[in-house]
Amino acid sequence: MSRLVMKFGGTSVADLERIRRVARLVQAEVAAGHKVAVVVSAMAGKTNELVAWTDGSGASAPGLTPSDDEYDVVVASGEQVTAGLLAMALRNAGTPARSWMGWQIPIIADDAHGRARIDDVEPDRLIAAMDAGQVAVIAGFQGVTRDGRIATLGRGGSDTSAVAIAAAVKAIRCDIYTDVDGVYTTDPRIESKARKLNKISYEEMLEMASLGAKVLQTRSVELAMAQNVPLRVLSSFVEPGEAPSLDGSGQGTIVCDEDEIMEKRIVSGVAYSRDEAKISLFGLPDHPGVSSIIFGALADANVNVDMIVQSHARTADTANMEFTVGKRDAARAVDIVRAAQTSIGFDDVAVNDEVSKVSVIGVGMRSHTGVAKTMFAALAEKGVNIQVISTSEIKISVLIDAAYTELAVRALHAAYGLDQL
Amino acid sequence: MSRLVMKFGGTSVADLERIRRVARLVQAEVAAGHKVAVVVSAMAGKTNELVAWTDGSGASAPGLTPSDDEYDVVVASGEQVTAGLLAMALRNAGTPARSWMGWQIPIIADDAHGRARIDDVEPDRLIAAMDAGQVAVIAGFQGVTRDGRIATLGRGGSDTSAVAIAAAVKAIRCDIYTDVDGVYTTDPRIESKARKLNKISYEEMLEMASLGAKVLQTRSVELAMAQNVPLRVLSSFVEPGEAPSLDGSGQGTIVCDEDEIMEKRIVSGVAYSRDEAKISLFGLPDHPGVSSIIFGALADANVNVDMIVQSHARTADTANMEFTVGKRDAARAVDIVRAAQTSIGFDDVAVNDEVSKVSVIGVGMRSHTGVAKTMFAALAEKGVNIQVISTSEIKISVLIDAAYTELAVRALHAAYGLDQL
Repeated sequence: MSRLVMKFGGTSVADLERIRRVARLVQAEVAAGHKVAVVVSAMAGKTNELVAWTDGSGASAPGLTPSDDEYDVVVASGEQVTAGLLAMALRNAGTPARSWMGWQIPIIADDAHGRARIDDVEPDRLIAAMDAGQVAVIAGFQGVTRDGRIATLGRGGSDTSAVAIAAAVKAIRCDIYTDVDGVYTTDPRIESKARKLNKISYEEMLEMASLGAKVLQTRSVELAMAQNVPLRVLSSFVEPGEAPSLDGSGQGTIVCDEDEIMEKRIVSGVAYSRDEAKISLFGLPDHPGVSSIIFGALADANVNVDMIVQSHARTADTANMEFTVGKRDAARAVDIVRAAQTSIGFDDVAVNDEVSKVSVIGVGMRSHTGVAKTMFAALAEKGVNIQVISTSEIKISVLIDAAYTELAVRALHAAYGLDQL
Repeated sequence: MSRLVMKFGGTSVADLERIRRVARLVQAEVAAGHKVAVVVSAMAGKTNELVAWTDGSGASAPGLTPSDDEYDVVVASGEQVTAGLLAMALRNAGTPARSWMGWQIPIIADDAHGRARIDDVEPDRLIAAMDAGQVAVIAGFQGVTRDGRIATLGRGGSDTSAVAIAAAVKAIRCDIYTDVDGVYTTDPRIESKARKLNKISYEEMLEMASLGAKVLQTRSVELAMAQNVPLRVLSSFVEPGEAPSLDGSGQGTIVCDEDEIMEKRIVSGVAYSRDEAKISLFGLPDHPGVSSIIFGALADANVNVDMIVQSHARTADTANMEFTVGKRDAARAVDIVRAAQTSIGFDDVAVNDEVSKVSVIGVGMRSHTGVAKTMFAALAEKGVNIQVISTSEIKISVLIDAAYTELAVRALHAAYGLDQL
């Protein structure tokens, strides 16, 4: 008998009907011989409702200024409710179960309230209960500090809770149930020929996650990779036994170590993000230390910079620089750069937030050449102009005019044969 | 500097506006030199909303069969939210504060989930925080079992939490803020001449509470009496400093030891209850053991019996018996009695739920005669027929036709001069 962790997000437990379906999915795994721990989020909408009490956004009265530790006390109550209800639903259906709050296990977190990190999971009581045949229903998103206060892990923290629990109880796998049935070669809303992947490596999933494929939280994938916990992404909107995948390889997408994927694809997927803005600096003095001043100031202000290119003007002793930041940070980034204009000494600054970043991702790039060539050819053929290029070992990203996003995604999807997996 | 416990019910913390008013009331006590612990209930309506999730009463889907321990997990989240919000509101207003859940203090409860009793409060950390000038905002209604599970104390349990905390931290007083401004000589909705009492003894309050004056939970008054914690009942719907009582004696009503009330009244109040039904058994055999069979069977079925009278027929060897039970239990009580008809051997049984119980209460009865005479005379004068009489050391109750309730209450209120306090 092996231990299995299952995780259900807010839409999967949004009402009693759905909580009962989750109970049936859990029972199917118990019947298949697994000892199960289930990690749950707050019912859809509940976290926002609780947050609204703390900041007054949902009330007629002016809001409170949240204190991080007390904010956690309020918001963590949402997962507590779901855990209790699912434990009841399982018992009603004849399966022994009990709920576990972060402090009961305990899941030890640091005291960075609202965005705490898990320091440790003490799994002995949990393992004893699971091994005795009792389903452990765990409130996600929360831990307890060494001082005994409730700490939440930040939005999407329930995925991280699930992976941490899976590592602690030495689970064979952590199944993340969500509202999509797996990880796709690209966004099916843009390319109807997108195909579900049966397996993907942690590294590829990390690139997909951080590039805008919102299936899994980056943090939970990092933790799974570090702890070597296989993940499976699958839909909770099926009944147990229903909806095997078309190719008979089982439901969902497995996220695992690269070595466990027999046939490596050169490119696994095409991701895109519309969340960035491009900032251009013109007429920079061409001497050492300029980049350090610019990006030092941005880092000090917690502005995350993604792509960076520097180019030299042919006829002058000056350079131009382009970099991208999150759209929300764009105005602030410009202010910071302008404040340093005299010390840096550039001519002008411009912002363009009508851009999008399109990326091709695949571990196979490591051993195959010609991936970039295929990409640039496919984009050129459709008349898509590339503004900035950046690469890593397993991905190539280009910044393009936002209006060409869908066209570019479809062109690349076809160019790498992803519709014929 | 003395410690003070303040307790606020659900209507007092129903929204952010009211939570801010509670914060101001707390600040006024801090400014007056008290070290304050505040016990809070769930925001009005929240407990019912949470209960509705467990039993489906508020949802379209059929409900769950609640499991007592998991029901507690779900329902206890309501007080957690209020505690966090009030701690925030206090900090926003410049007063150091933090929330405490039952498990954090801890408040040790037994494992009778849903109606747990408090076994112990370990006050050291709480006292240290209060003495350091931090307001302790405590989630009422909840404790933690020795096994580390959440246990709730049953409806109205927050009053009990407050008294237990007050005893544990050796508070000078436990102030129960509610939606009325004190304990009255009778229900002001029935008798506009009802007067607020400045002081009342624990014993009198217990009789008032159990007889239908719904100001304080019986259990919390019992605990206050056992631990000798003075209670004060007062309204939370005032601003600090507003609304001193008309006679200048301070707000609300103090509930304390009889010895601390200088001038004892013979009768302190008139209470009534419409929640009872009268069951009459006719033609009972007149031999020992009959009562034992009847009331043994009712006790086994957890039916609470209040008043009992037995009378003998003048001309036969049989007796009649009348007793009262809660209206909700009446049909069940009749079934139980009928099931025992052959073993008991009575002729007939009748139920009357058009009755009400009216009581006069006062510790002065112990040393004064003539209290009953005044009562019966006042009722006779208004033509009110008495069906059953029962007495204790400090109260006399009569069962009358429910239609005469208001008339009887007003007649007794006048007869004992309660409108001229």
